[in-house]
Amino acid sequence: MYMEDLLIIGSGPAGLGAALYATRFSLKTSIIGIELGGICNIVPRIDNWLGDPGITGPQMAKKFVDHVKLTKASFIQGEVASIKKEGEHFVVTTENGSYEGLMILLANGMKHRELKIPGEKEYSGNGVHYCFTCDGPLYKDLVVCVVGGGCSAAIAALFLQDYAKKVYLIYRRKELIAEPILVERLNASKKIEIIYETNLTEIYGDKNVKGIKTDNGRDISLDGVFIEAGNIPLTALVKDIGVKLDEKGFIEVDKNMATNVKGVFSAGDVCNASSLKQFITAVATGSIAAQ
Amino acid sequence: MYMEDLLIIGSGPAGLGAALYATRFSLKTSIIGIELGGICNIVPRIDNWLGDPGITGPQMAKKFVDHVKLTKASFIQGEVASIKKEGEHFVVTTENGSYEGLMILLANGMKHRELKIPGEKEYSGNGVHYCFTCDGPLYKDLVVCVVGGGCSAAIAALFLQDYAKKVYLIYRRKELIAEPILVERLNASKKIEIIYETNLTEIYGDKNVKGIKTDNGRDISLDGVFIEAGNIPLTALVKDIGVKLDEKGFIEVDKNMATNVKGVFSAGDVCNASSLKQFITAVATGSIAAQ
Repeated sequence: MYMEDLLIIGSGPAGLGAALYATRFSLKTSIIGIELGGICNIVPRIDNWLGDPGITGPQMAKKFVDHVKLTKASFIQGEVASIKKEGEHFVVTTENGSYEGLMILLANGMKHRELKIPGEKEYSGNGVHYCFTCDGPLYKDLVVCVVGGGCSAAIAALFLQDYAKKVYLIYRRKELIAEPILVERLNASKKIEIIYETNLTEIYGDKNVKGIKTDNGRDISLDGVFIEAGNIPLTALVKDIGVKLDEKGFIEVDKNMATNVKGVFSAGDVCNASSLKQFITAVATGSIAAQ
Repeated sequence: MYMEDLLIIGSGPAGLGAALYATRFSLKTSIIGIELGGICNIVPRIDNWLGDPGITGPQMAKKFVDHVKLTKASFIQGEVASIKKEGEHFVVTTENGSYEGLMILLANGMKHRELKIPGEKEYSGNGVHYCFTCDGPLYKDLVVCVVGGGCSAAIAALFLQDYAKKVYLIYRRKELIAEPILVERLNASKKIEIIYETNLTEIYGDKNVKGIKTDNGRDISLDGVFIEAGNIPLTALVKDIGVKLDEKGFIEVDKNMATNVKGVFSAGDVCNASSLKQFITAVATGSIAAQ
């Protein structure tokens, strides 16, 4: 089997940033991921990547991917099923095959947190969504809600108001934790209504979603629920090889993005290098890890 | 006196990244610096800013500055002479005036390390240079040397070969510490000769530089000396307010870029957040500090 110096798990901003730097350090590098560009591909608009105000996520993904294509890094499409240590190297297996590397870099990010309430699974894809850019445009002139209070939830609500006739933003706390500049825009919107200190208890409907119930007794008729209630680091893969997680479940890294396991590094949202989970920190931690 | 929430000292990538994020968090922010864009302005070519392969430093500076101009951050041109704490806030003084802020962020980077050998000061500007992009083009068809072995020295030698007829790269160690991709390019060049394990002991000449002497007895005739022998963090300003430095002289910061002094943050090359001193880490640490 062909042995790489470095296998990068994840093909979003952190993985691509790492690939750029790793190849500059002459490491034979492969990126394993589901889609080049990762999370970038579904972000409608990015205002905080210095130098490119208002760029769309797909445009940024293209810029990143085009740059990495100039390097010698190769891309292996696939979802990683397991990571194992064999002697001094690592074996990463996807549905398409197995790949060997002397080092691995975990940059596979986070997945959406589910609400785990009745109706959520049942209506998933039929009124319950986790990707507002993918599914938001289906709700033209309808009523939707966004569940969450962080930047993603705020961006989702602002995006959805361009389609829906009414957008509820439902959050469990007293105050949103989104960037203040986003909160200002939410408050300025006539289509968005923010409901604080409220949790969903049920999503109901017939064939499609018809409404939600809340823990303070409200029953709201609506057509779609967009869940942006935070994310969970994707760390299940690395428990087998003994990588240490912090108390919140993120991969613990030092200043060089090294984990406690020799030859295993991590970057981007899956690790605890920064509480600021943004493209800029993802690419930066990827770069440092590669070094 | 008008009180800002945040005064950013330094207007390079870290300072601009911090300004972008700080204004998104609705902090009233001023950037104090000598020139918007900072170090970017004198870098010939940047290949490792993900998404913009081969962009020139001035182009990148313009992109960054144009983005920050869309925010509410203001720019105060000037060189900082002192930073003082007065009660719960800070007073930053330049040759043009004094400015007050509740918090300060130190992003003023590094300055060139001098060799401290005879002739260096004497011929400074007349054959001894610290900015190869500024002064390199003057050496068309002449002979020059670059002193150093890191990325900056490698980039300087590669830049200078387009003008000079011969470029010596003189380094004190056995192996260069520049990125391998740069070392490959140096080795492939017919105009560049690398001299290892050698230190300059003297720069001599008449009105202009005529040659150098080394600690292993060599005497090399040449016309220009470009010094790229590392950098020293610019921390003199913060000693008065009790900011702690690490053993190498960089400002000590935690994961949130906070220093040991309440209200004082640091980002970019001047701090010890990352040993990778690059634009991407500068902008990222600036962003985290602002958060």
